[in-house]
Amino acid sequence: MTTTGYKKLINDPFDAVDEALEGFVAAHADVVELAEPRVVVRRTRATDKVGLVVGGGSGHEPAFVGYVGTGIADAAACGNIFASPPPNVILAAIHAADHGRGVLMSYGNYAGDVMNFGLAAQLAQAEGIEVREVQVTDDVASASRDEAAKRRGIAGDIIVFKCAGAAAEQGLSLAEVERIAGKANAATRSMGVALSPCEVPGAGRPTFELPAGEMEIGMGVHGEPGIKRGPLKPADEVAQTLVDAITADIQDRGRGDVALLVNGLGATAYLDQYIVYRGARKALEAAGLRVVRSQVGEFITSLEMAGVSVTVTLLDDELLTFLDAPANTVRFTA
Amino acid sequence: MTTTGYKKLINDPFDAVDEALEGFVAAHADVVELAEPRVVVRRTRATDKVGLVVGGGSGHEPAFVGYVGTGIADAAACGNIFASPPPNVILAAIHAADHGRGVLMSYGNYAGDVMNFGLAAQLAQAEGIEVREVQVTDDVASASRDEAAKRRGIAGDIIVFKCAGAAAEQGLSLAEVERIAGKANAATRSMGVALSPCEVPGAGRPTFELPAGEMEIGMGVHGEPGIKRGPLKPADEVAQTLVDAITADIQDRGRGDVALLVNGLGATAYLDQYIVYRGARKALEAAGLRVVRSQVGEFITSLEMAGVSVTVTLLDDELLTFLDAPANTVRFTA
Repeated sequence: MTTTGYKKLINDPFDAVDEALEGFVAAHADVVELAEPRVVVRRTRATDKVGLVVGGGSGHEPAFVGYVGTGIADAAACGNIFASPPPNVILAAIHAADHGRGVLMSYGNYAGDVMNFGLAAQLAQAEGIEVREVQVTDDVASASRDEAAKRRGIAGDIIVFKCAGAAAEQGLSLAEVERIAGKANAATRSMGVALSPCEVPGAGRPTFELPAGEMEIGMGVHGEPGIKRGPLKPADEVAQTLVDAITADIQDRGRGDVALLVNGLGATAYLDQYIVYRGARKALEAAGLRVVRSQVGEFITSLEMAGVSVTVTLLDDELLTFLDAPANTVRFTA
Repeated sequence: MTTTGYKKLINDPFDAVDEALEGFVAAHADVVELAEPRVVVRRTRATDKVGLVVGGGSGHEPAFVGYVGTGIADAAACGNIFASPPPNVILAAIHAADHGRGVLMSYGNYAGDVMNFGLAAQLAQAEGIEVREVQVTDDVASASRDEAAKRRGIAGDIIVFKCAGAAAEQGLSLAEVERIAGKANAATRSMGVALSPCEVPGAGRPTFELPAGEMEIGMGVHGEPGIKRGPLKPADEVAQTLVDAITADIQDRGRGDVALLVNGLGATAYLDQYIVYRGARKALEAAGLRVVRSQVGEFITSLEMAGVSVTVTLLDDELLTFLDAPANTVRFTA
């Protein structure tokens, strides 16, 4: 299918991010508010806990703003569409999240985010705020196992944010919250498949081209190239391919209980998402893994891209406790 | 944009509904289970309350299965894609929902559903189960105000289900639960806009054609014709058009507090949905209505159709109490 002429319900493309944020905080004023432009914070600020700042480019809604609230993040720093927030925005998020016990920042591992969050951390530390960072690196398609630290962060973000947020909410120290975030990241792998591109508002062209009847395995959430392009396959085959890549990457971690998250990238129907979930679950069970927690839906999107990603987290009692802990955010309630 | 060749992540199209349901109940086994094929029920059955059965065609996920759980429905009866469930499926849902105090069935007002739910009601009544029905008729684009009873049900379904479910959960009688459902329906109006069609699995062609750069106002969730086709407008204009049609229809009901629900039809980004929410909220406020409750997201979709609908409910203390009451379903937690 040709993919020009995306139809969007926006006004001026340059206002899209700020208008969407204005709508977001108005719709969910019981949970969130804007501390300043591009900085979404809890309506009821926490006290006496480690702060958790999340963030990244816009266009991935409900990420990252949907995870601000009790039990997960204190603040989200929002950039332009598919672009990192600048350091001053991140610094403002740190200020909002700082309750005197230090701030953990967690975000997907992208060069722009690493640079800007890092700069903001330096600025905050110069003010006497202790800041640590955990970059999420769950996308197995984005680098080899030998270079796992170079991998991108995709839907595994949500698992890391949830566990870190729960640890912070329970009063753990900054070092402990950092450890939990790192542990959740190390236990989490994802891979996605794109069926169609999306269009950045105002760009006038799609983020990439994907011919009729084709899919791209391993594509990133900003259209970064995947590892294989080929004919669109049945859902069960796609699910098997994604799960195989994930389990191959964690094969030395043994068998056990896992959380399975199927994430819609924007334009793929729930019907399809649940069919992929079914296939992924069967594939995991055939590999000797037991699915004990599940999430299906849109958690981190690429505007109106069609496709899904599969995320698997190896659980132990500690991670399971944090995953199950109460949360009250716009996108995630437990 | 031409709209052939929709890319779907499914297996055999004829298995899509059952495989998606299998995935759904596996993913959410803490909340739901299949009582039999196409009948989704609460995992923990209620006792001693009026039963609430919802349902309709599949392809609208998370409707209707996403509203089964404590505080809303006891059971959902699921049909083929965009087709009413047959009477025997609905009867099985009634049996699962019957706790000896009668069963209310609520569903969108479509000829096939009216016929099949009606037949099932007769069969249940012949067995001695008292059954009442409330058809949702919120879509102002689908018939004139003089023929409001002929209107289709779209996202207003969710409001009616939520209020009726809360009334049932609180132990009210069948007559009272029926009254609340009818009151919620009478207080609720919706209208949608489609930007692109969807494709029924296996059909090989889209549900309708919508040329590049055009939108259709008032289109139904199965591609039923709308009231006006024309060039795609900015989000604020679209929101104003939808709100104008809604407020014109309720103008004699005075001013007051309302709930505003913006529903994504499947392929429209959250970014756009929140921009439409912002525009609709401003338009309602300019019309003298105060938005006191809000929902934004995909509540009743048309597979991967692009577009949104806007739903407005005039609230009084009674409806607000039921809308705010606790619920624990896959799609709606309060």
